[in-house]
Amino acid sequence: MTKKSVLQQARAAYQPKLPSALWGAVKAVKGAATESVADQEEIKKLFPNTYGLPELRFEKDNEVAKKKSADKEVINIGVILSGGQAPGGHNVISGLYDGLKSLNKANRLYGFLMGPGGLVDHNYMELTGDIIDQYRNTGGFDIIGSGRTKLETPDQFEKGLEIIKELNIRAVVIIGGDDSNTNACVLAEYYKAKNAGVQVIGCPKTIDGDLKNDWIETSFGFDTACKVYSEVIGNIQRDTNSAKKYWHFIKLMGRSASHIALECALQTQPNYCIISEEVEAKNKTLNDIVAEIAQVVADRAADGNNFGTILIPEGLIEFIPAMKKLIAELNDMLAAHPEIKDMEADEQRQYVIDHLNAENAEAFASLPVAVARQLSLDRDPHGNVQVSLIETEKLLSEMVDKKLAAMKEEGKFVGKFAAQHHFFGYEGRCADPSNFDADYCYALGYNAAQLVNCGATGYMSSIRNLSKPSIQWIAGGIPITMMMNIERRHGENKPVIRKALVDLEGKPYQEFLKNRAKWAKETCYVYPGPIQYFGPDEVCNQTSRTLYYEQKGK
Amino acid sequence: MTKKSVLQQARAAYQPKLPSALWGAVKAVKGAATESVADQEEIKKLFPNTYGLPELRFEKDNEVAKKKSADKEVINIGVILSGGQAPGGHNVISGLYDGLKSLNKANRLYGFLMGPGGLVDHNYMELTGDIIDQYRNTGGFDIIGSGRTKLETPDQFEKGLEIIKELNIRAVVIIGGDDSNTNACVLAEYYKAKNAGVQVIGCPKTIDGDLKNDWIETSFGFDTACKVYSEVIGNIQRDTNSAKKYWHFIKLMGRSASHIALECALQTQPNYCIISEEVEAKNKTLNDIVAEIAQVVADRAADGNNFGTILIPEGLIEFIPAMKKLIAELNDMLAAHPEIKDMEADEQRQYVIDHLNAENAEAFASLPVAVARQLSLDRDPHGNVQVSLIETEKLLSEMVDKKLAAMKEEGKFVGKFAAQHHFFGYEGRCADPSNFDADYCYALGYNAAQLVNCGATGYMSSIRNLSKPSIQWIAGGIPITMMMNIERRHGENKPVIRKALVDLEGKPYQEFLKNRAKWAKETCYVYPGPIQYFGPDEVCNQTSRTLYYEQKGK
Repeated sequence: MTKKSVLQQARAAYQPKLPSALWGAVKAVKGAATESVADQEEIKKLFPNTYGLPELRFEKDNEVAKKKSADKEVINIGVILSGGQAPGGHNVISGLYDGLKSLNKANRLYGFLMGPGGLVDHNYMELTGDIIDQYRNTGGFDIIGSGRTKLETPDQFEKGLEIIKELNIRAVVIIGGDDSNTNACVLAEYYKAKNAGVQVIGCPKTIDGDLKNDWIETSFGFDTACKVYSEVIGNIQRDTNSAKKYWHFIKLMGRSASHIALECALQTQPNYCIISEEVEAKNKTLNDIVAEIAQVVADRAADGNNFGTILIPEGLIEFIPAMKKLIAELNDMLAAHPEIKDMEADEQRQYVIDHLNAENAEAFASLPVAVARQLSLDRDPHGNVQVSLIETEKLLSEMVDKKLAAMKEEGKFVGKFAAQHHFFGYEGRCADPSNFDADYCYALGYNAAQLVNCGATGYMSSIRNLSKPSIQWIAGGIPITMMMNIERRHGENKPVIRKALVDLEGKPYQEFLKNRAKWAKETCYVYPGPIQYFGPDEVCNQTSRTLYYEQKGK
Repeated sequence: MTKKSVLQQARAAYQPKLPSALWGAVKAVKGAATESVADQEEIKKLFPNTYGLPELRFEKDNEVAKKKSADKEVINIGVILSGGQAPGGHNVISGLYDGLKSLNKANRLYGFLMGPGGLVDHNYMELTGDIIDQYRNTGGFDIIGSGRTKLETPDQFEKGLEIIKELNIRAVVIIGGDDSNTNACVLAEYYKAKNAGVQVIGCPKTIDGDLKNDWIETSFGFDTACKVYSEVIGNIQRDTNSAKKYWHFIKLMGRSASHIALECALQTQPNYCIISEEVEAKNKTLNDIVAEIAQVVADRAADGNNFGTILIPEGLIEFIPAMKKLIAELNDMLAAHPEIKDMEADEQRQYVIDHLNAENAEAFASLPVAVARQLSLDRDPHGNVQVSLIETEKLLSEMVDKKLAAMKEEGKFVGKFAAQHHFFGYEGRCADPSNFDADYCYALGYNAAQLVNCGATGYMSSIRNLSKPSIQWIAGGIPITMMMNIERRHGENKPVIRKALVDLEGKPYQEFLKNRAKWAKETCYVYPGPIQYFGPDEVCNQTSRTLYYEQKGK
């Protein structure tokens, strides 16, 4: 038995709160037939059996006479954790377990190990009550592990079907992000098309917050991860406001959208926060961003404040239009001329500059030498530039330093500039879930069991009305095809769940916009402190600022 | 008014718990005359007026008839925050304020701004109740700021005396680490020698935990900082135990001792933790450490576990005897031959290797090229190698990677190795204090006011019996000279408070030693979670593991 911390022991007793609709027996109320958000004809053609399904909403079923257990059909479920960790995964599984057992004590839950690969390779374990109890309200995906294998090919689906049949599994529940839920729908369609008698249900997971839409208000884990990042950002802000000598460049996980950076900015009120979606929309260059930051530093220095904090979304580089073009041309050049990588550093740099088009050559030349070299040297197995290796936080501070030196010569900067760098990601992905995530995840899992029970497939477990107390949350299921459109991915048109980027017209961003000039100039830091589980309601049960502003007035 | 987080608002109401000895009027009970821990004759000569003073212990004074405020002499105190931030500094000041006001409502508290420099330069503010109330139970030193100016010269002391006289200040309370407390004693001696009527009292602050001895059980801030680091280390451990694909190299602040690394290891049970004091005692080389880590990685890989966590104390490099020698010779070489820094990289490297002695040349050549170059290039303003710039966590993982590649060729490593890097320091220095630090700091400050009231100077505020409930804590004062010895610093013999390194015979280290082989091979991670303020007693009021083991059985 592993040793448990005192907090873990105390927290094990927490009973997540369920929406009242899920207390006791439920009935599924069907809405009207649905359409995908775009490309309806194409999506319909690709998902003939799972397209156009109605929304489902669960209500209390007061009329149902409880059948005896013996009369009920046994339902076995297999559950999969897919992709990166997010706080609350264990509560989805414990909710699923409790929901399944509430239907019939003879039902069984199996966990496929280390992600979708466990289904294909027949690696699994039965999740019994003893095991589940060890993981209630804890962070991490270690109960069955996670993995990044993509379920995409009929061969995989057939391999999965073998073990599904062997274990008499009625449904597979896939806990994952947008891609994993897209694949869950592909799998649902495949099994339904061949009448395999296997349902597939998805659950919306990702700390990045980019899986959300009109029906899925937030993905789980976002709330907790942002609270952990905001805790340490707040601590850093206290530090710099005490020592008054450093600018802290803080990079935050999340490559495909800037929701995390925005949420942390709303929680902590830093001096500057980059929103990648804005950078792209305004066609900003790296130099534009550097100039803006340098100006903020200079303006604060003019007030005698040679310190501050800057939040940087991990995916920034890929949102800068000029960098995107540069990287695309570099990829082509290096594929066509593999000999470049064997050149001496100086020769290589000159060759690259000479052969890029003028615009890209200028962008390349403006980068610090080490970063430029990284771009022209380090490739991933597919031969692509490894943008994720670039330490954006150091790149930016180095460029700001240079810019400020130039401004100093022109008398436009009077002060000191010294930087510290941070990158937060792994620090929050497996944190113990906040009360919000603990409740939300448990409800998502419990609800998934009800979706299986009512025969649904190709649905995502949906819990809504999340800014209200959990008793008022709305439980149901949303057809996954409803969230889909056709996007170009790796040179192919694919049906995918539409990714939710930061909406520049949305209320959370607008709230940020309204305040950022003040936050830049003055010192308006807020110190959220660590997540609390036992204190006053307003301390323990606050939702993310993003969700708060999005739902405000709804 | 700055915006406060909901937790900050709720936490403001917390009333720190005082030792019962400090409830109401107190009397100071004197112990026997004291001696310094070593070099008694020399210390006595340097501190003729503050050497040999008795220990003081406060007890309830039931006999004293309370004087009316009007009859009491007014006591004004000036307080200084010195050096790096530590959680709880604001509570020392609020305790000091409350203690001072409990003696006489007419007493005043002044804060000198941005560290000891505020005393010398006459920058100060009065700390009134309104201001104090904004900072109770919060982290940071932002109430008056901190700084690293050292109070060492008579000129500074005289400048300080001007403002002290102007404000009618009876005593200066210096909140700082070992060096700041040494200087507090020098200042006390100076003012006493000239009969200036100014007392000086120190308070033991540092997250590093290296200011402790038989009379000061722990420095404040250590408890909270280690809990914050352990929270995120625990989260990282959950992550790697879920994804099972990374070795996390985690560097922890604390250059002069490894208490933080040891405490975090006891809290989280990582796979490996370097204790610099052990490295020095066993005369280990960098290659020895790399070989040990590589063996731990290989042993886990043999079990199929290609993941783990490694804790690294920030000061490691300076504890490795071979590196110390190398750096010393490099410093001399570069001072004698400044032209080296202008050489081309390859030429420089060869020159350095050719001119170092054989042992140092070997150590230099074994370093990754970039690190070696950093050693031979980057200097601080005094011309010394900037050891702190070396990213030890990356240096180690790079060397381990290389070592494993060699072991793989020999068939001694079968597995994968991929690393992630972290450095935690600023994330914890300004965290909101744990209940322990909130209480301890408040008591230190309240107690300091009593020390001033009873006329003590050259004393450190001392609160003991800390592993017991706070009501049983022992309050008093320890003559600072008692903790001193003579050490060689920057080529000079100086009287200093003896620094507390990790005691390799001590119980905390012995506890680590007993378990580390098991923690290395198996996965025994503990996940402490975030600091809690409102929950069950055992969750909110646990002391550091270091203090627990040190006090166990006492």
